[in-house]
Amino acid sequence: MILLGHGSGGTLTNQLVKTVFQEAFGNPILDEMLDAAVLELPKGRIAFTTDSFVVDPIFFPGGDIGKIAVCGTVNDLAVSGAEPLYLSAGFIIEEGFPLADLRRIVHSMKEAAESAGVRVVTGDTKVVGRGGTDKIFINTTGIGLIPEGRVLSPRRMQPGDAVIVSGSLGEHGLAILARREGLSFTTPVVSDCAPLQRLTRAILEAGGDGIRCMRDPTRGGLATTLNELAAQSGQGILVHEELLPLRREVVGACEMLGIDPLYLANEGKVIVVAAPDVAERVLEAMRGLPEGTGALRIGEVIPDNPGLVLLETELGATRIITMLEGEPLPRIC
Amino acid sequence: MILLGHGSGGTLTNQLVKTVFQEAFGNPILDEMLDAAVLELPKGRIAFTTDSFVVDPIFFPGGDIGKIAVCGTVNDLAVSGAEPLYLSAGFIIEEGFPLADLRRIVHSMKEAAESAGVRVVTGDTKVVGRGGTDKIFINTTGIGLIPEGRVLSPRRMQPGDAVIVSGSLGEHGLAILARREGLSFTTPVVSDCAPLQRLTRAILEAGGDGIRCMRDPTRGGLATTLNELAAQSGQGILVHEELLPLRREVVGACEMLGIDPLYLANEGKVIVVAAPDVAERVLEAMRGLPEGTGALRIGEVIPDNPGLVLLETELGATRIITMLEGEPLPRIC
Repeated sequence: MILLGHGSGGTLTNQLVKTVFQEAFGNPILDEMLDAAVLELPKGRIAFTTDSFVVDPIFFPGGDIGKIAVCGTVNDLAVSGAEPLYLSAGFIIEEGFPLADLRRIVHSMKEAAESAGVRVVTGDTKVVGRGGTDKIFINTTGIGLIPEGRVLSPRRMQPGDAVIVSGSLGEHGLAILARREGLSFTTPVVSDCAPLQRLTRAILEAGGDGIRCMRDPTRGGLATTLNELAAQSGQGILVHEELLPLRREVVGACEMLGIDPLYLANEGKVIVVAAPDVAERVLEAMRGLPEGTGALRIGEVIPDNPGLVLLETELGATRIITMLEGEPLPRIC
Repeated sequence: MILLGHGSGGTLTNQLVKTVFQEAFGNPILDEMLDAAVLELPKGRIAFTTDSFVVDPIFFPGGDIGKIAVCGTVNDLAVSGAEPLYLSAGFIIEEGFPLADLRRIVHSMKEAAESAGVRVVTGDTKVVGRGGTDKIFINTTGIGLIPEGRVLSPRRMQPGDAVIVSGSLGEHGLAILARREGLSFTTPVVSDCAPLQRLTRAILEAGGDGIRCMRDPTRGGLATTLNELAAQSGQGILVHEELLPLRREVVGACEMLGIDPLYLANEGKVIVVAAPDVAERVLEAMRGLPEGTGALRIGEVIPDNPGLVLLETELGATRIITMLEGEPLPRIC
C-alpha cells in the first residue's frame, strides 16, 4: 500500500523508485538517478509536449491510465512529425493506493513505451492524503526529434487537400463512459488506445512534403480537432457523413445515450491532411499497418466557409459542426 | 470559477488557455498552439527533469504553488549544470477552483519564469470533479542545455572536497508547516523559494572543473540530500554542527515542535561539493549574489565511513545522520 512517506523524498521514496519504477523502466540514463536526466541529442529541432492523465476509471477495456499516459504523449509527438525518444513520468498517488495496482499500471507503461520505442528517463513521485486525488494521476512529458526540413502545420492546408482518418471513431470515449456508468453492450466497446509513431512514420514516408499536418482526435473527438484545424488554417473543411468510419455498436450506443460519436475521444487514431496527389498513396501505406487498416478519406479542405467545419449529411443537407461545448463526458484521459 | 468543461478540450478549454495561460506565458513557440512545441536546440547534451507540485497550502509566506512549480524545476536543471531554457506546465484543477486564484498562481509562474530566464512553451489543463484533487496540482517539466565538457556527478567527489551550502536551512519546510498548522511565530518564517540558475552559473564560473556536483536540498532536507550524495559517491561526508546556518527562529520553532531542521525542505538553496583549491573562490562568488550571501562551508568529504553522513556535534561527539524515514511533514512541494 502506498504511504505518505513514499512521497517524502526519503528512504521510502528511494525504495519505491528502485523496486517499482527502476525495475520497470530501468535504462542507463534513468539509472544515473540524478536531479535531471542527461540526454545526447543531435543538432536539430525537437518536439516537446506534456499531458496529465486523470482518466476515471483507471482500468478500462483496452487499457489503463498507464498505457494511455505513454500513448497520449507519444502520439502528440508523432503527429507533430517527430520521432518520439524520451519521456518523463510524474506520479501523484493517493495514500492507501494498492501497490499491486501501481505495479500493474507501471507495467502497462513499460509495455507501451517499448512498443513506441521510447525510454522513460526521469520521473517524480508525490503522495497526497486520502481524498486528495481520485486514486492516481500521471503526467508524461515527451521529447522527440523532428527530421531536418520537415514542417507540419495547419497553415500549409490548401483547398482540395484530402482529410483522412486512420480508423473507426469514438471507441475510447465510449469504453470509458460505459465502464464508468456501468453500461454493458452485447458487443463490448474497447478503447483504441495505442501508440501511433509507426503509423505516422509510414504516412510521412508515403506522403513526403504532401503531408500538410496530422492530429490525434483525443478530447473533444473528431469534431473538435477538425474545428481546431479549420481555425488554425483559416480554411473550411467538408466532411461526408456517409464516409465516417463508425462501428455499428458505437452508433447504437450513442443513439441510446443521446450523444454524438464525433465528440467522443479517440486514443489511437490520427487525422491526416494530405495534398490530393499523395492521398491515395498515403491511404495505401496506412492500410498496410494494423493500426491503419480502417483508414478512409472522409472529406476535404474547401475554398469557402473559412474556419468552419461542414458536415454533408447522408440526406444531402449540409450543417456546421462546432467544437465541443461544455463537458458532456466523464474524464476520458 | 473553473468548470469541468474547462478540461474538456473544447471551447471552454480554448478560452481558458487564451485568456489565462497564453495571456501570461505568451511567446512565439507557445502561441503556435500545436500538439507539441517545436524547439531549435544546438547540438549537445540536454538536461531533462520533471516535478509535480502538490503543496498544501497553495499560498504560503514567500510564495505559492506557481512560484515553487517554476523554481523547483529550474533548480533541478541548474544544479545539473544546465542553463534552464524551456518548461512545460501541466495543470490538474479541481472543479469550482476560483479563477482569480488560478490567475494569481499563473502570474507567479510568469514572474518566476522571467526571473529564471525560461519560457513556458507547452502545457495541458485537466479539470477533475470536486474532491478529486486538493484544489490544484501543477507539473512542470524542464529542458536545459549543458555546456560542452561539463560533467557534474557525485562520482567525482574525493576526500578533502569542501561541502558548501548557499544559506540558512529549513525555512521553506517550516513556513509550510506553520501555515498549515496555524502556528505563528514572533518573527514570521518565510519560504526561501527562489530560482537558482544565476547562483549555479556563478559557482561554475568560479569553480570550473573543481565543482564536483551540486544538489538542491528540497524534500527530505539537507540530511537526506547529503545521504544521497554519500550513497551515490561511495564517500563519507562529515558536517560540523556549529557551522550549520540555521536562523534563531527556525531553531526555536523546531525545538518547540520536536523536529530536526536538517530534514526540513529548502526551495532556494544549493549544496556544492567543490575541490579544496577552488572552495574559497566559490564561496566568494556565491556571497556576491543576494541568493548566496549566507554561503558557508559546512563540512568535507572524508576518506572513511564510505556512504555515510556524520555530524560532529557542538560538544565534539560524532553521530550518523540518516535519510528521512517516513513522512513527518505535510506536503511541502
